[in-house]
Amino acid sequence: MEAPKRSNPMMEKLAPRPGRYALLPELTPQQELALLARALHREGYDDHIAGHITLAQPDGTFLVNPWELAWDELTASDIIRVDSTGTVIEGEWNVTPAIGLHLEVHKRRHDLKVVLHNHSRWGLVWSASGRVPPVYDQTSGQVAGDPIYYDEYTGTVDGASEAEAAAAALGNEKWAILKNHGVFIVAKDIRQAHLRSITLEHRCRLAWHVESLGEGHPITDLETFRVAQMSDDLGFPFLWEAMARKEIRLDPAVLGDEATTSAERKA
Amino acid sequence: MEAPKRSNPMMEKLAPRPGRYALLPELTPQQELALLARALHREGYDDHIAGHITLAQPDGTFLVNPWELAWDELTASDIIRVDSTGTVIEGEWNVTPAIGLHLEVHKRRHDLKVVLHNHSRWGLVWSASGRVPPVYDQTSGQVAGDPIYYDEYTGTVDGASEAEAAAAALGNEKWAILKNHGVFIVAKDIRQAHLRSITLEHRCRLAWHVESLGEGHPITDLETFRVAQMSDDLGFPFLWEAMARKEIRLDPAVLGDEATTSAERKA
Amino acid sequence: MEAPKRSNPMMEKLAPRPGRYALLPELTPQQELALLARALHREGYDDHIAGHITLAQPDGTFLVNPWELAWDELTASDIIRVDSTGTVIEGEWNVTPAIGLHLEVHKRRHDLKVVLHNHSRWGLVWSASGRVPPVYDQTSGQVAGDPIYYDEYTGTVDGASEAEAAAAALGNEKWAILKNHGVFIVAKDIRQAHLRSITLEHRCRLAWHVESLGEGHPITDLETFRVAQMSDDLGFPFLWEAMARKEIRLDPAVLGDEATTSAERKA
Amino acid sequence: MEAPKRSNPMMEKLAPRPGRYALLPELTPQQELALLARALHREGYDDHIAGHITLAQPDGTFLVNPWELAWDELTASDIIRVDSTGTVIEGEWNVTPAIGLHLEVHKRRHDLKVVLHNHSRWGLVWSASGRVPPVYDQTSGQVAGDPIYYDEYTGTVDGASEAEAAAAALGNEKWAILKNHGVFIVAKDIRQAHLRSITLEHRCRLAWHVESLGEGHPITDLETFRVAQMSDDLGFPFLWEAMARKEIRLDPAVLGDEATTSAERKA
Repeated sequence: MEAPKRSNPMMEKLAPRPGRYALLPELTPQQELALLARALHREGYDDHIAGHITLAQPDGTFLVNPWELAWDELTASDIIRVDSTGTVIEGEWNVTPAIGLHLEVHKRRHDLKVVLHNHSRWGLVWSASGRVPPVYDQTSGQVAGDPIYYDEYTGTVDGASEAEAAAAALGNEKWAILKNHGVFIVAKDIRQAHLRSITLEHRCRLAWHVESLGEGHPITDLETFRVAQMSDDLGFPFLWEAMARKEIRLDPAVLGDEATTSAERKA
Repeated sequence: MEAPKRSNPMMEKLAPRPGRYALLPELTPQQELALLARALHREGYDDHIAGHITLAQPDGTFLVNPWELAWDELTASDIIRVDSTGTVIEGEWNVTPAIGLHLEVHKRRHDLKVVLHNHSRWGLVWSASGRVPPVYDQTSGQVAGDPIYYDEYTGTVDGASEAEAAAAALGNEKWAILKNHGVFIVAKDIRQAHLRSITLEHRCRLAWHVESLGEGHPITDLETFRVAQMSDDLGFPFLWEAMARKEIRLDPAVLGDEATTSAERKA
Repeated sequence: MEAPKRSNPMMEKLAPRPGRYALLPELTPQQELALLARALHREGYDDHIAGHITLAQPDGTFLVNPWELAWDELTASDIIRVDSTGTVIEGEWNVTPAIGLHLEVHKRRHDLKVVLHNHSRWGLVWSASGRVPPVYDQTSGQVAGDPIYYDEYTGTVDGASEAEAAAAALGNEKWAILKNHGVFIVAKDIRQAHLRSITLEHRCRLAWHVESLGEGHPITDLETFRVAQMSDDLGFPFLWEAMARKEIRLDPAVLGDEATTSAERKA
Repeated sequence: MEAPKRSNPMMEKLAPRPGRYALLPELTPQQELALLARALHREGYDDHIAGHITLAQPDGTFLVNPWELAWDELTASDIIRVDSTGTVIEGEWNVTPAIGLHLEVHKRRHDLKVVLHNHSRWGLVWSASGRVPPVYDQTSGQVAGDPIYYDEYTGTVDGASEAEAAAAALGNEKWAILKNHGVFIVAKDIRQAHLRSITLEHRCRLAWHVESLGEGHPITDLETFRVAQMSDDLGFPFLWEAMARKEIRLDPAVLGDEATTSAERKA
């Protein structure tokens, strides 16, 4: 669990108090992945059963949500584990045939733990527009830089050579808008993946509303956001916890069978 | 129940695992029809009590949702059965006077089991626009081809000759946008009807957003989607199950009295 | 309760079956009024505590929702009764100061039982646009004719002379868009008020979406809807019942204390 | 609790009846603040954990929602207290680093008790447009005057000199649109803060819809609203109570631990 490090000197200065209750319980990686999927589904990453998130593990395996389930029903117990060839080695569900692109990116980017793809509502609009949405507010600017606009999509993402081409096009970038095919986001951990995903969807939604109204004034001098943009690296304090906590509050089953059993045991 | 055939060689290769739980319980045709109506209502097929779905049965009769009920309250126990003249032969509710068009299409298209009409939110927008929405993303392209734009609507659909004219205009097509009157979709089974209905609504919604923003880049070379479009024929793996499962999770009563009774019996 | 008259020969022919359960319980006028407010709130008549509905009674008094409560919390027990001067003669809540316009219309239109005003979401958009929304689909055409566009609003509606002017401007019409101030709808009964209110909001919403997209094709020959438009007079079969039933299902408390007490008594 | 004063002669004349039940229970300042945050979150003040509300207390301290929690999960027990330097003196949560601007405004404006900032959905759209939304309906005109458009935002709001500049720019005004950064609203009490916040969001939302459709007709002679605008000063009767009541009805936990305990004690 990537709670803001209390040993981080800046956070110790800014937020010295312990809080009235724990912001989140201790979470397993499977629980974090399920919570991320649920939280993003609520914000527009909701194209039925589309979309996958891989989470690299220290032993070289990857956790991933199964092919069969929608993001809003996923629990920690449903998360499967694949090896570096995409073969399921733990769990009873199946892996998406589109796992190839995820693995190809993980292979090239050891700085990353999370690779995420979905057809988010507002991301899709810009994916068909031929443009990257401008940054129209501070929240849109929490993550610096424009997504790459990858326009060489020529088929589904399950073919090896297409996966290689796409991973090469991503290069060292943090996010992409896939032409006519949604968004692609990578991150060093779940917290960063969450911030990048909600920031991109917010940016896409707001930009659509601003430009539908008429002339807008984007923020061009992104240097002004130097402080805010530290959040992408250091973690936006408390934000991921609040959004994950909401999912647990609305449906504790997201934490999986073990959590339920352990809760029942206590009750 | 049209679960993806595990005997389908491609699916056996792609999804060999049995899953942590059954994707759906065994369903009667009445339960499938009620689940389809509920799932589509949630996605925009929600014009009050408008809309009907007929499901041809092997004995030449048809199951249909009753005139009196909205799609979001329908249960399997409410589904009525009509004969080939549209006379109710099972169930206590009444049949819509608009049954004529459904029966006329069933008469001409023995390849079809499902005929569906409603005034979906985004379908209506394009039904008034005079245009078929372009395909702006992969999800919109899951079902190949443009709907016909049937612009000779000259009254309600309960008159026999109008029904014949409309059925003739549909010909061998799979879907239509009815000028100023919503959408009309036919399919070989519930699964295909579901995919076509959600795909058309998604396509209409996305296209509206893209074109409201300004210039968009539709996908014109639909050959690129040859893989995705196999889903229309073979069934999009796991998707119908996930959406039907959600309806059962949110309101188990959708399965009808018998299901409830049988569940109570077990409890 | 205005259930479709089974003694109506057309309905007896079209819908001879009794149904699997009663479409609605017997309702008092207070229950009908509360259900109408709740159903309309759900469809966009939701500007906080704005909006009033008066229902003329045979004894010359009027039932009305109180000033203090929002439409989505109203129960039958909250409905108050005023005399022809607007003085509360039954109930513990207060009457809106804007009752004057309602009473003025009732005084002139003995063909009417219901007078309704609110700031509905999509009605407001057109109220500021200077135009009446065209009829872009069959559902929008269920009620014939264009609302008058009353543009002489010069203050709040609680002054007597303004009320007289507005009532005179309405004349024998059935509905109006009030410039910069929402909609005003009159009807012979609750069922007709419901159909007119949801039809106007649907018409306003769809027309906005069509015109935001670009050129639309309105229905100009409304004669084509002669059948559908019988619904305004005769009652759209089953529709009001379905929408009222939904409110009872979602919150039985809408029926008021007496209903609850009587239900508890049975239990 | 700022219930409409029954000793107010106008209200005694307009609303002489006591009501069927109390419009709200007696509320502590902490409960009022939590209810305001919840009610506004529901109307679009919902950018994750963004946004703060300070409520000046007679002893020179300030109540404020903590940094860690989203507005839709806040309870009265979570509200913290800071002194005039922004140091937490009561409560276990932490205060936002952006407290500086709030305190700077409180220092200059002793007529105010409430200072509120958030990134509301429709407020953001206009904050990027370079324009103040016109008043397109009566509801938008409940609060007189145009927000100032503060376009000198050059960083986050946690720096002292930026806070001073912003507070100086606000001057004696009641509200501001912050360029690319949402809205800023001040008020003499919770009731007025609520009315101003929902009015601004309504105004922003409606204006967007009107202008997206095409030419609109704003209300320019705001004198016509002289009556309605008394609400800003005197309190819009019953409105705050209804919206706060809704939050209590949907989640009584908003009132905090003490309320729950006391309710349990009675049960």
